[in-house]
Formats: sequence, C-alpha cells, structure tokens
Amino acid sequence: MSWYFENGPESDVVVSSRIRFARNIHGHKFTGSADEEELKEILKIFKTNKVVSGLKFIQLSDLDDLMRMSLVEKHIISRDVLRQKNAAMLLNADEDSCVMLNEEDHIRIQTMTPGFDLDKAYKEAKKIDDQIAEKVEYSFSDLYGYLTMCPTNLGTGMRASVMLHLPALRMTGQIGKVIDVVNKINLNVRGVYGEGTDAIGDMYQVSNKVSLGLTDEEIINNVTTIVNKLIAQERNAREYLRSKEVEFEDRICRDFGTLSCARKLSYKESEQLISIVRLGVHMGLIKDIDAKKVNEISVVTKPATLQKFSKETLEGTELEIKRAEMIKKIIKK
Amino acid sequence: MSWYFENGPESDVVVSSRIRFARNIHGHKFTGSADEEELKEILKIFKTNKVVSGLKFIQLSDLDDLMRMSLVEKHIISRDVLRQKNAAMLLNADEDSCVMLNEEDHIRIQTMTPGFDLDKAYKEAKKIDDQIAEKVEYSFSDLYGYLTMCPTNLGTGMRASVMLHLPALRMTGQIGKVIDVVNKINLNVRGVYGEGTDAIGDMYQVSNKVSLGLTDEEIINNVTTIVNKLIAQERNAREYLRSKEVEFEDRICRDFGTLSCARKLSYKESEQLISIVRLGVHMGLIKDIDAKKVNEISVVTKPATLQKFSKETLEGTELEIKRAEMIKKIIKK
Repeated sequence: MSWYFENGPESDVVVSSRIRFARNIHGHKFTGSADEEELKEILKIFKTNKVVSGLKFIQLSDLDDLMRMSLVEKHIISRDVLRQKNAAMLLNADEDSCVMLNEEDHIRIQTMTPGFDLDKAYKEAKKIDDQIAEKVEYSFSDLYGYLTMCPTNLGTGMRASVMLHLPALRMTGQIGKVIDVVNKINLNVRGVYGEGTDAIGDMYQVSNKVSLGLTDEEIINNVTTIVNKLIAQERNAREYLRSKEVEFEDRICRDFGTLSCARKLSYKESEQLISIVRLGVHMGLIKDIDAKKVNEISVVTKPATLQKFSKETLEGTELEIKRAEMIKKIIKK
Repeated sequence: MSWYFENGPESDVVVSSRIRFARNIHGHKFTGSADEEELKEILKIFKTNKVVSGLKFIQLSDLDDLMRMSLVEKHIISRDVLRQKNAAMLLNADEDSCVMLNEEDHIRIQTMTPGFDLDKAYKEAKKIDDQIAEKVEYSFSDLYGYLTMCPTNLGTGMRASVMLHLPALRMTGQIGKVIDVVNKINLNVRGVYGEGTDAIGDMYQVSNKVSLGLTDEEIINNVTTIVNKLIAQERNAREYLRSKEVEFEDRICRDFGTLSCARKLSYKESEQLISIVRLGVHMGLIKDIDAKKVNEISVVTKPATLQKFSKETLEGTELEIKRAEMIKKIIKK
C-alpha cells in the first residue's frame, strides 16, 4: 500500500515525516556544472538496480508528463529535478523510499513515513545511505562534512521535515504568530501549498534550516521538540473550537456535505474542504468516512494525480467534474 | 399511508389538489353569530361518527397544541378553526378527507389528493357532501345557491385549489409576472409559506376567487386550464436551466449535500433546500433519494410536526438540530 494512504503516530495533526540526505560523488562535478556526458555516467552507476535493494531505477524522461507531475504532487520528487535532462530516481513499490539522481546534488536520498515518526524515516534513509556508500565514494570534507551544492546542506546533509495539518490554529487566528515564532528558532515553517499564512488546505512543513555543526540526532531532536509544541497548540485550538459546539460542528458537517455531493470542485476549493473534513474526522465529528479515505481523497484529487487515476487528459470544468466524481467514489466505496 | 407522502399525476410540478365545500345548516345562526350552546348542538349531530363513513369525529380542544399546529402545517385544518372553542373535525385515517365543523361556516368539507387530480378530490368531496345532506338540511337559496358567511363562497360554495412547486420560474426571474397574469383572470395565486413572490420553498396555491354564477365543473375547468399553463411554463423554465448544465446541477447537488449533512437547519433554510432538492429529484439530477422521501422530509420538518414526530418539546437550536437529524434519518433509511 502506498505510504501516503496510511496513518501513523499523531496522525490527527501530523500528516507525514520525511528525512532527506544530500550527497555528491567524489571526482564528479556538481550537477549544475557537469555536462550531460558526466551526468549520464552518474546515472550509469545506479542503472543496474543493484545499488539499493528494493528500489527500481527509473529514468525521469521515460515517464509521461502526468506521471512526473503526479510524483511532484505526492512530494516524492522535486519540481527541480524535472528540469534536468539526465535525471532519474530509484523508487520502491510503496513509494516511501526514493533516491533522486542529478537533482541539485548528485544524490538525494528521501524517506517518507505517515504520521510523526522521524526515527523510522531516519533508519530507512540511513540504510539506503549505507548501501550507496558501498558503491561510490561520497564528497566529504573533515571540516565541512558532506559537500553539497547549497551551503545550507553542508554538514550532515540532512533535512528532517514534518508536514502538519493546522486548521484549528488558522481558524482561531493564531497561525501567523506561531509561524513567526518557529521561524525565529532556526527552523523553517512554510505552507506546503499556497503562500505564507494562507496555506491552501492548512498544511505546513517544519524543517531544519541548516545541518552544519549539528549531528543527525540533534537535528531530529530540534525538529521533534518544536513539532510536539505545535501538535499541543493545534490540539488546544481544536478543543477550544469544540467548546463552541454546534456552530463549529455544523460548519464541518456542511463542508463534508459539499465535498461529498458537489457536481464539480476546483482544486483550491477541494483542498479547503478536505482540510475541514480531515479536522472533522480526527475530532470524531464526521463518521461517514475514516482518516485513510481522507488521505486518499487528498492525494488523488491533485491535478496531475487525478488525471493519471482517471486515465484521461482533462481541463477546466471537465477536470473539476472528474474530481467531484472521484471523491464520491472514494466516500461511497 | 398518509396522502401527503405520496405522489400523483404531474407530481414534478403539482404537489397536491384540493376541493373544499362551504356549507351551513338551515335553522342555525352562522358560526360567528351563534352562542356556544348552538355550536355544541351542531357538533352533536356529528358526534355519533355515523354521518360520514370512515371519518372519525375529533373535538379540536381534545388535541394538544402540537397536534393541532401539525394539522395546520399539513393544511388539513385552518388556523382559524383553532380560535373556536366548540370546533371539531371529521377525519379519515389517510388524512385526505376532512370536515371542519364550526369554522367560518358550520361545515367545511375538504378533500386532498397528491399531484394534479381535482376530479378525484371532487368525487370524494361530493360523496361526503351527499352523506351529510342526508342528515341535515343545508342553507340554500334558489337565487344565491349555498348560503355562506363570506360572499365569495356563495353559489356552489366550492373552492378548487392546486399547490404548485415553481422553483424554476423563480430562478429564471419569471415568477412575479406569472403571478400578476394569473391574478388578473379571476383566480387567486399566492405563496403557501412566506409572502408574495418570495414564497418560502417556492410553493404556490392557485384557486378560484368566487363560486357564484359558476357550476362546479366550470370552476374546475378554469383552474385546470391555468394550472396546465403554469405546469408547461415551469417545465420550460426547468429545461432552460438544464441547458446551463453543470453550473445548475452543481448548485442542486451542493444544496442536497447541505440538506443531508448539516448539523442543524432552521425552518426557513430547510424549506429553501428542500425546494431545490425536490427540483433536482424530479429532474433526475439527484438519485440518492426519491420523490416520496422529499415529500416526507417536507412534511416532518415543519416546526410542530417535527416536534410531534420527535416526541419532544424543543426550541431554537435544539429544534434545528432535531430537524437535521430527522432529515438524515429519512435520507439514509
């Protein structure tokens, strides 16, 4: 089962946890400076499918546009890697382990896990890292640690990030202040979709800003401390909203009605409705669907993924109709 | 089965048809002039339950307030009759035949039928009329016909009325003009709930203004002609709306979502939503419920009837919550 349909620890607030290692191969120019021949040589190392067990080599240029955009929507690959002609990924069946090749760095190891579980993601990433290290020599300096294209990735080359669903902090008007505070303590927090404090779907990603001078453990601890605080604040805000009782419930129930019955839904509206419905499901106020179905709806209604699932190239109103139909199908099944 | 849950001819536009005869008993003062003793004497004639077969005598003062208001909401008795101390009704099990006693006139025979079927209602009313005529002598003048309290009821004493659901004429902005035209040709048309052209729930009643100088058949023909025209106009307006396709469907589907999922619903909002959902069901755009369920929802969500069904005396938000729960129950059963 694809990891993004599942739930994990603290799933009421935390959607997913992710670890990323940035690595480069000794003796090769950075991706941005290397010519296509050199980039091809790097891909060649991984083409045998034997470097990392369970992960399959996929040349990104072999995939059609929808498939590639769908991978971006699911945060499995970055938008940036699609700009490279000679880029590839290693991916497993559950899509929770991915190695991007020739992105900003030669190697970007990424592991994802549902809910709040950075340790699990870290262990998986480390396993992959070790396997790759057996085949290639990483660019490494005793002074700076792993050498990376961007200085913020120097050191461990690690980014630990957590995606949080914070609708109640928005609804109670606290989200702006919360973001400001987190940004001041050497962590990044940003809306995953949309801009700034008006994140579409109330999804926020918290991650470390730098990795130089810190151990992997310290980075994970820093992120964990803040995420735990955010979880507590969001839960408090939810209990405050619950105390408003029927007005709040009514709003949630009506949004579920619109999500499940509309004849057509734009991407933006569906993300907003899904956010409220997710909140309602995790607060026990909506019982017609479970949290896994919310995850599924959230994934398959994104534009490219929706078209991939529906096996049609659709635009405008047609795509909005297909989105509404897909949601109905998931709710009713 | 109560008649108001059923559908009949042209049920897509016509909710119900109704015939009413106004009669008074020779040798007794009109209700408004008679003292309580005289009114009691009139009731006494009907107390045996043998005057009209199948209709049971019920003294209105024996019913509780909710029961009485619920009968008014279902248009089985008038609000006026509740002001009389010595008032009663004869009612059958299906609630489609009713004789009010000591309303404005001594005797008000009323028969109701789902859909557009004045002939059927007329036959039933006539049957009851004939049975009563065997027991009492009606006040009758060769010049004026049946003598009634209000001059508009002189002559045959008959009112033929039809309740129509005209949402598309409202949505296309034609309803005001349509009402003006009908009112000019000696027929009454009025919103059943609410005022004027902004009838809550888009329900309109068309009936003859006078009965003097016309035969029963002529009255029914006049009403029938106009109702047929209104049905055609409403259907045209619906087809026009259908041609707007997905925008129109989307609105209908969303209203169904709100009606079926809201945590609480005011009376006014539920009537508005029911109107749109009824339209959607009859146009084949909503398939999750059938027309009978719409009828049922429409009846049981009216304030007094709702409290009667829920066996609780509720107010404000509690009643709005109960209304939403009742609707969910009917939709899901």
